[in-house]
Amino acid sequence: MKLAIFGYGNLGKAAEANIKYFPDIELTGIYTRRNPESVKSLGTPVYSADDIYNHKEEIDVVFIAGGSATDLPVMSPGLAKDFNIIDSFDNHAHIADHFAAVDEAAKSSGHTALISAGWDPGMFSLARIYSESILPSGKSYTFWGRGVSQGHSDAIRRIEGVADARQYTVPVEDALDAVRSGKQPDLNARTMHLRECYVAAKEGADLSRIENEIKNMPDYFAGYKTTVHFISAEELKANHAGLPHGGFVIRSGNTGADGQTAHTIEYKLSLESNPEFTSSAILAFARAVARLNKEGDFGCKTVFDIAPKYLSAYTNEELRAHLL
Amino acid sequence: MKLAIFGYGNLGKAAEANIKYFPDIELTGIYTRRNPESVKSLGTPVYSADDIYNHKEEIDVVFIAGGSATDLPVMSPGLAKDFNIIDSFDNHAHIADHFAAVDEAAKSSGHTALISAGWDPGMFSLARIYSESILPSGKSYTFWGRGVSQGHSDAIRRIEGVADARQYTVPVEDALDAVRSGKQPDLNARTMHLRECYVAAKEGADLSRIENEIKNMPDYFAGYKTTVHFISAEELKANHAGLPHGGFVIRSGNTGADGQTAHTIEYKLSLESNPEFTSSAILAFARAVARLNKEGDFGCKTVFDIAPKYLSAYTNEELRAHLL
Repeated sequence: MKLAIFGYGNLGKAAEANIKYFPDIELTGIYTRRNPESVKSLGTPVYSADDIYNHKEEIDVVFIAGGSATDLPVMSPGLAKDFNIIDSFDNHAHIADHFAAVDEAAKSSGHTALISAGWDPGMFSLARIYSESILPSGKSYTFWGRGVSQGHSDAIRRIEGVADARQYTVPVEDALDAVRSGKQPDLNARTMHLRECYVAAKEGADLSRIENEIKNMPDYFAGYKTTVHFISAEELKANHAGLPHGGFVIRSGNTGADGQTAHTIEYKLSLESNPEFTSSAILAFARAVARLNKEGDFGCKTVFDIAPKYLSAYTNEELRAHLL
Repeated sequence: MKLAIFGYGNLGKAAEANIKYFPDIELTGIYTRRNPESVKSLGTPVYSADDIYNHKEEIDVVFIAGGSATDLPVMSPGLAKDFNIIDSFDNHAHIADHFAAVDEAAKSSGHTALISAGWDPGMFSLARIYSESILPSGKSYTFWGRGVSQGHSDAIRRIEGVADARQYTVPVEDALDAVRSGKQPDLNARTMHLRECYVAAKEGADLSRIENEIKNMPDYFAGYKTTVHFISAEELKANHAGLPHGGFVIRSGNTGADGQTAHTIEYKLSLESNPEFTSSAILAFARAVARLNKEGDFGCKTVFDIAPKYLSAYTNEELRAHLL
């Protein structure tokens, strides 16, 4: 199958680097809104975004590597009129609208689209649907981290006097232990997570004001246990340049005539690089998009609609022999 | 949908107890090879196995709760000629034959069958296919336990002088740690697991001979780090009556142009009762069997062929709103 990458930020770059692990997928082009001459790829031809319509014959699926806030709501329904597409739309509040727009575009033109691929939404969504379906009586918990939240890091950077910043979301160990014990505690995002901030301040900035502004920032930090560490810009660059992430989906459930028997299902990701892992997952799901389209299964899908066999490079016989 | 349970051992009994967690599934009958009068259910009508053909109108799916050694190779292809069926066939070496026999019976009669549902094969198989598909470069590990192996317990019971026994399979902590570290060590079943045996000996039996026979039993114990604890029959009954089990599927994989970035995916089950959890998982997959049959998707399936949405009681809209 032939793949195009649309957008060449962190995610698009990681996809290009990872394509070699998917030998049945040929990367035929990278499409960018920047001047293509200014973009240095790892070797893949780079074209202007608008040029994609001249390369239809070279594209089975477009991997749209754009942001959920403003890019994907336009790009995904737009491109789904002419291509099979996959995106990593992660704005939970607007998934229904995004799904409807992409579904309409894809169905009316005989294309197949998959939205919200990646790890959350994506692999964590799968952990939730499987565990809740097989253990209907119980409680599910999603913990994020330890990992860099780019949204929270950006929010800190917007504070006056801050030169650069990195925010780690960290699961609370006691909360994890309580969930694993089967007690099914009542928890929320604030009792499940700590926020650990590394801040490089500008020269002469008022550190205690910055710390105060961080800790009291509504939605982002207020109500969370937040720690702020001031470090040099050099230290920030040296020790906090990566984008690790991960987390846990845990289902604590009960079976038996009186619900007397407890079970725990835990799905855990420990990722050294969020964009590299996300792009690798999306490449596997892009394989499914191409296959479903060949079968005539059009319209918008999510990970819930994809039988796992479609993700694998193995034949059904091989899967049954080696992975079942 | 209407369900029948065929076989009333540990698994069939657990399925009956768990049916209340699946309000859209009506349990219409239990079918047994014993005298139905002698079987005391929790309230479900009990019929003779042969009687199942007189109840076709009351059955959308038959949950075949038989053993993999001799029951399922006969029952599953047999019943798939007249019913949609689901089983938990777990004899890895014979899955290809079992699949072919069931597929032939189901396809030729317009039925849908799902074999090898449960947790391994089943949920662990899913953990393997997803993690290997999204991280193609890497190594996968399956650890079992801590849990009771009925096959190993039975093997000990066959030794002269043994009144009763329980064997726990226990993951080796150092092996788990090495896998989680991302080192991708070379391991095998013997370096990954300990075998912990609790044995009630008959009066006057030679304990050191029994211990020796256990530790040197080919295939089952030889080459494993095995501990043998002699306890009273009362203690065995009081403290080792349950059938807990579980384990880990861990994928340690790499991404990036030079494979320099490490990720770990861990799927963990901690089950207080193996048959209760297994039957609960099978009930969710039975839902999928009924739905696929309604869609005209006939023949034999495995968990790899089932889109996750088919397992859930929720609508697609609800799934996207709440679990994605």
